[in-house]
Amino acid sequence: MKNNIKILVISLFFTGTVFAQNGQALIKKSINEQQSNLVEEFRTFLSIPNVAVNPKGLQDNANWIKNYMQSKGIEEVSLLTLPNSSMPPVVYGEVKVPGATETVIFYAHYDGQPVDSSKWFPGLHPFKPALYSGSYENGATVLPWLSAGNNYDVNARIYARGASDDKAGVMAIINAYAQLKALNIKPTVNIKFFFEGEEEAGSPNLEAFLELYKNKLASNIWVICDGPVHQSGKKQLVMGVRGDTHLELTVFGPKRPLHSGHYGNWVLNPAMELVRLLASMKNEKGEVTIKGFYDDVIALSTAEKQALANIPSVEDQLKKELGINATERTGALNDALQLPSLNINGIQSAGVGKYSANVIPTKAIASVDMRLVVGNDWQRQQQKVIDHIKAQGFFVTDKEPTDEERKLNAKICMVVQDKKSYNAQKTSLDNLYVRRISKAISLVDNEQPLLLPTLGGSLPLFVFEKVLKTSPVTVPIANHDNNQHAENENIKLKNFFEGIQVFSAIMTMEK
Amino acid sequence: MKNNIKILVISLFFTGTVFAQNGQALIKKSINEQQSNLVEEFRTFLSIPNVAVNPKGLQDNANWIKNYMQSKGIEEVSLLTLPNSSMPPVVYGEVKVPGATETVIFYAHYDGQPVDSSKWFPGLHPFKPALYSGSYENGATVLPWLSAGNNYDVNARIYARGASDDKAGVMAIINAYAQLKALNIKPTVNIKFFFEGEEEAGSPNLEAFLELYKNKLASNIWVICDGPVHQSGKKQLVMGVRGDTHLELTVFGPKRPLHSGHYGNWVLNPAMELVRLLASMKNEKGEVTIKGFYDDVIALSTAEKQALANIPSVEDQLKKELGINATERTGALNDALQLPSLNINGIQSAGVGKYSANVIPTKAIASVDMRLVVGNDWQRQQQKVIDHIKAQGFFVTDKEPTDEERKLNAKICMVVQDKKSYNAQKTSLDNLYVRRISKAISLVDNEQPLLLPTLGGSLPLFVFEKVLKTSPVTVPIANHDNNQHAENENIKLKNFFEGIQVFSAIMTMEK
Repeated sequence: MKNNIKILVISLFFTGTVFAQNGQALIKKSINEQQSNLVEEFRTFLSIPNVAVNPKGLQDNANWIKNYMQSKGIEEVSLLTLPNSSMPPVVYGEVKVPGATETVIFYAHYDGQPVDSSKWFPGLHPFKPALYSGSYENGATVLPWLSAGNNYDVNARIYARGASDDKAGVMAIINAYAQLKALNIKPTVNIKFFFEGEEEAGSPNLEAFLELYKNKLASNIWVICDGPVHQSGKKQLVMGVRGDTHLELTVFGPKRPLHSGHYGNWVLNPAMELVRLLASMKNEKGEVTIKGFYDDVIALSTAEKQALANIPSVEDQLKKELGINATERTGALNDALQLPSLNINGIQSAGVGKYSANVIPTKAIASVDMRLVVGNDWQRQQQKVIDHIKAQGFFVTDKEPTDEERKLNAKICMVVQDKKSYNAQKTSLDNLYVRRISKAISLVDNEQPLLLPTLGGSLPLFVFEKVLKTSPVTVPIANHDNNQHAENENIKLKNFFEGIQVFSAIMTMEK
Repeated sequence: MKNNIKILVISLFFTGTVFAQNGQALIKKSINEQQSNLVEEFRTFLSIPNVAVNPKGLQDNANWIKNYMQSKGIEEVSLLTLPNSSMPPVVYGEVKVPGATETVIFYAHYDGQPVDSSKWFPGLHPFKPALYSGSYENGATVLPWLSAGNNYDVNARIYARGASDDKAGVMAIINAYAQLKALNIKPTVNIKFFFEGEEEAGSPNLEAFLELYKNKLASNIWVICDGPVHQSGKKQLVMGVRGDTHLELTVFGPKRPLHSGHYGNWVLNPAMELVRLLASMKNEKGEVTIKGFYDDVIALSTAEKQALANIPSVEDQLKKELGINATERTGALNDALQLPSLNINGIQSAGVGKYSANVIPTKAIASVDMRLVVGNDWQRQQQKVIDHIKAQGFFVTDKEPTDEERKLNAKICMVVQDKKSYNAQKTSLDNLYVRRISKAISLVDNEQPLLLPTLGGSLPLFVFEKVLKTSPVTVPIANHDNNQHAENENIKLKNFFEGIQVFSAIMTMEK
């Protein structure tokens, strides 16, 4: 009986901004009381390996999420698959809200970047989550997991692959709804859940998948949870993402490794050829010197320029934190991210350190990634690089060179083009949901989120507009120093808990 | 009784060139009859790991050699050590020849280059010797080891670490004497055996060792067995070696790996900084562009120029064999080797291929080796590179940068200087043993060996002149395509068997 009265009171209460604020206070209190459970459930989730080379692990993740959603009271949950593909299942769910006329679909992904556990700090392992008092790099110490009823220091961090990118998103979205349901707060919109399992592999099947499930996935807006909040710690609403494409370049030297004494000076060293090639791609000012590299870029709108100007300066803080004195491009970080980029992800030829030997290596490999902005086309951008390599005198091939090709060409570069690339996407700042979602997020801590024209990172968001004619916006929750895409990935508990609040606020956003 | 007559006949016979030629024919026949035993013994020797990281393995090698020498009738054998050092024992032996007034000391080393067995071809392993019908790269097939009395195809190759560099030298020298003893052919000189165990580590203790055993090691000439014969297959007598020194360069980026999307374009990529630095060190013509790099080089003598002109051209054959169309320096291989070199041994930053991730790496490492010629000093040569790095705007340190150093410097390069470096050495073509050893070698196959002013490779031969005031000459035996210093090291059986002949010829050289 008491319960019923409470529900009635809440239902009466939470209409209008003031009431929504009080709703947020209730949700915050409730999350606070459930800290240890939430962390324990997150920890269990993070223990399931989620890398592309392990399809069974991805399936296990999908099954876990499905059960977890059902346990949180989401009734219509299913694993959707794309027939005749290797696409891991999408975990899908729906909540229909009586009287709601709009539908918001929430996206996150449960797969993670590849891992090399040997590179993680001692005591850390990608799939053995560990809790630390803060940032490991800054000397944090390991903490115990707490039993029910105990509270964590919210500056503590969980270390594991996917902790921030992007299992945190899955957890925050599900628990946002779970909180509303537990507190009997009625969402203002119909809710759809969409958890993908191959985002880090470039979502090669997403477009076909959306085509197949077009009707089921109808919505007014996609809300994507991925990436980090602003380096200042401020929340942000992100209108777009850069596109992403890769090339792997292999320069060939002699067919067998040669003694660097007996042949050094005479036989071309492929590592030297590769470094000269890479060095030719960018100047000291950080400008890519590949012909036409910036040609397709569409200029920013006035509103976008204004939004960028509103972003607080974090450059000095970042330099200190990262231990760097200078940057590649002068000026603000977010100005630099409005341009296409070219970055060496990795480079390798023979061995260094204890593996170094006195050889002329047989080949040298560089993995290069390029970020794209609106206007760029990934195939055109790849071609510009290939043309540049040719202009440096290389014979370009897409496979190991034949003896005949070796005989005919002084310099040979194998270019493996990533076909799972995608273009940038940007939602207009005029989109009506921008204002409403912005306002909802502001209820969490009484501060307007920053409006970011584009995230530096990439997601295949263009497909939502292309297939479903629906725009996406991104609401990141992770701390900016989360080591996303690298070893020692982590999330700050404060960001995890506030993330839950953020999505519950969006699920209850006003007109 | 029959045996005694035979010995008498031989003893009478082998004085003068014609007789020496007949001696060589006998030795060749004898080696031929013992092929399977020799190969079996070599195989046993090659199975004992001989890398610097495994001191126990090196000791096992030394013990094995000592026992082997004794089994071949060398009576005065001992393991000589350098007190208070980590130097593996030198296996030392002596044979005093009645009436001989000169002493030749034969050198080889039993340690090998570092190994990464995962890089060896399938079926091969550094310490599990395998026999192939020819060169693995050219599609050779595996062959069985033969039992006593059977003969091998001499084009077959043994694959193992040390097969050519330089356990072959140890085997050839010991068995050269063993053949003479078995056939009762009296050497013309006293013989000393000197087998070192840390040549591949740069022989850091050799100088102190020679000082300590100065008297014991007195000789008229050092004959070094190491390195390959000429690419044409001709034997060669080598007057010198290039010196060798190393630097390991580490360029530092952000303190933690960064998402290449969220920071790409803004944070300096250490891999890009490193490639730009390395590219600044050499031009397209293969000339090192570091200031003063060639300044100390002492010009060749007329006799040396003539010797170089006599070397047959192998450049076209080599290009074909190595699958290369062009070379770094135009002109003859041996002309290029008369100059100091700068070579990238290896380079590494983050991962490539399946280990590639979308990051800005935290650091990028290059291992650089430099060969030196007479006139160069390794410390001066290292300093030229360091000065060049500074001139490119880098702060140079010899350890990981502190936060303060990171704060103050835009570009930081850690340079680890190899202190176990050494200078070049060259024996004059006027040395009287050059003619005599040359003539001895020519008896093996009735062809004068090539005279090479310097080998491209390096040995710490300067110490023999410095400490003992005795000149060294080098007599290589390995096939040139032996993959020395790399994976898949091998020796052709023909080279192994002829190597035994070569040293027996030198041990019986005429005045």
